[in-house]
Amino acid sequence: MDRLIDAIERTQNPSVVGLDPTEALVPAQVVASFADEVRDSVDTPEEAPAAQLAVAFYEFNRTIIDAVAGIVPAVKPQIAMYEALGPAGIDVYTMTCEYAAEQGLYVLADVKRGDIGSTAAAYAHMLTGVNAGASAEAGSAGAGAHDPWHVDAVTVNPYLGTDGITPFVDAAKTADKDLFVLVRTSNPSSSELQMLDLADGSKVYEHVADLVERWGADTIGEHGYSRVGAVVGATHPQEGRALRERMPRTFFLVPGYGAQGGTAADVRGMFDANGSGAIVNSSRGIIGAWRTSGRYRKDMSADDALALVFDTAREAATAMRDDLRAVL
Amino acid sequence: MDRLIDAIERTQNPSVVGLDPTEALVPAQVVASFADEVRDSVDTPEEAPAAQLAVAFYEFNRTIIDAVAGIVPAVKPQIAMYEALGPAGIDVYTMTCEYAAEQGLYVLADVKRGDIGSTAAAYAHMLTGVNAGASAEAGSAGAGAHDPWHVDAVTVNPYLGTDGITPFVDAAKTADKDLFVLVRTSNPSSSELQMLDLADGSKVYEHVADLVERWGADTIGEHGYSRVGAVVGATHPQEGRALRERMPRTFFLVPGYGAQGGTAADVRGMFDANGSGAIVNSSRGIIGAWRTSGRYRKDMSADDALALVFDTAREAATAMRDDLRAVL
Repeated sequence: MDRLIDAIERTQNPSVVGLDPTEALVPAQVVASFADEVRDSVDTPEEAPAAQLAVAFYEFNRTIIDAVAGIVPAVKPQIAMYEALGPAGIDVYTMTCEYAAEQGLYVLADVKRGDIGSTAAAYAHMLTGVNAGASAEAGSAGAGAHDPWHVDAVTVNPYLGTDGITPFVDAAKTADKDLFVLVRTSNPSSSELQMLDLADGSKVYEHVADLVERWGADTIGEHGYSRVGAVVGATHPQEGRALRERMPRTFFLVPGYGAQGGTAADVRGMFDANGSGAIVNSSRGIIGAWRTSGRYRKDMSADDALALVFDTAREAATAMRDDLRAVL
Repeated sequence: MDRLIDAIERTQNPSVVGLDPTEALVPAQVVASFADEVRDSVDTPEEAPAAQLAVAFYEFNRTIIDAVAGIVPAVKPQIAMYEALGPAGIDVYTMTCEYAAEQGLYVLADVKRGDIGSTAAAYAHMLTGVNAGASAEAGSAGAGAHDPWHVDAVTVNPYLGTDGITPFVDAAKTADKDLFVLVRTSNPSSSELQMLDLADGSKVYEHVADLVERWGADTIGEHGYSRVGAVVGATHPQEGRALRERMPRTFFLVPGYGAQGGTAADVRGMFDANGSGAIVNSSRGIIGAWRTSGRYRKDMSADDALALVFDTAREAATAMRDDLRAVL
């Protein structure tokens, strides 16, 4: 986790921008501007709209990345938005991660993977890359000569227990990368499982928290945090504060700020006494800031719309930084 | 779930073949045979081994699919094995699903996705396809004109609760497809969370089971089972038998037969009184049968090796069918 914490200290900004594009979040004239380019590249006309949207996602993402690089330390592309478009979307996902990494950003791949051990080992190649050939097997951990994903960390689901996590921890150690395990998610129905009362008096999410702290125990970095972070939603300020005490070596990824309702005051308790220990995500609040700016016009050119996306994203990222700084 | 149950009745075989290739599971001469074809298609030499393995996975999968079509009703490609290779692997994943569907097989995409509601809605496009353009948004549910994934069902993780599941249920209804939610997984450390004792006297996985039964309640098909299935590992025969009673409207996907240790006797209790209600997966036991056949030689040609893969997969799939028939 040291690389992320260093980047946060460099920018003095514990926030991460979620790159979660949808068709509604990309100005229509930007999508339309790629119609000609895409038409000739697809095999069937049915593929064209998704391919066009994928290309538009990439242009949109590059604009956001250019706008926030230097202000924020990290981006968090949500792979679901890209998988919705099929393989064309996955191409753009990896291109987005590569571009962000080239701009010096820490890339947190929000993929929420999780499976039994042998399968988790395959997923863990997102961290290590692959070296298919004589020396390595696709299903085995180990750094590879080819890194198609270009990510610094992944999010992982804990429902399968330790053997579904260990391959990611091993991969993180091998490749100097990190993972973040879901503990207390930001969505309304997260409590259905996570808040269940256990017979021993604790809650399910507290039990998961203890597992996460243990999973990271032998990966503590120079800043005192392990490679195994936790996802703790901004929408649960009290549990977040208690988890901060319960998990002293675990860095938090905090989604749910902004559009989902979490405020800077809500996330204050998820930081440690030094103002470290957490990074707060905002997606729509930054990448969709152009929509609420009052400055968008339907008859703008695609270039002007992208310039507005750039300006509003930069303003929103700066405002979020200052909002967090004020409480830390 | 009716389409799957019809296919099981047609083949008189409640088993599904896991298409989970790794480098070790594909004969080396088959991988080698694609060296020339791949060399010219990649941008950098580093990409070549992964691209070559991806092409070999596809050839291997087609061989398995040709071997088992007509014997089994369904295949279950595990996406992790393909994601390990990056976008080249994802291309082959969707091509594999498309080829299997063309051969009349029900395609169960083992993706174990799960996220907050708005993100789950994006993932649910794996079931509905996409129709990017004026009429639909990438992040919204609804059947699309373009289906890049070619799958009939997905597996989903329950850790985020109802709002992470509803978009998949809605998509399944829209597209006449299904989902399978993790309840009791087959791996050794699954018990760390799933078997925890709750304050009300039940276990975590039993609580999840009750949620799953409820999530499917208004999607009951002609055969009496809902569109929301459950993943119940063959390695837990007693819990599986109890879950069969507890979840009368929920169809089971049962992994863990064969290489993971589960037997036909172990899975008997996961079927209903009519011998329906479950489908049992085997991956390595079928796709890796060539390795344990004693008939493989390193100096075989690639064509001969694929012929052996075909014969041994067909034999293993037939043996598994007869093994299951004997207890049902």
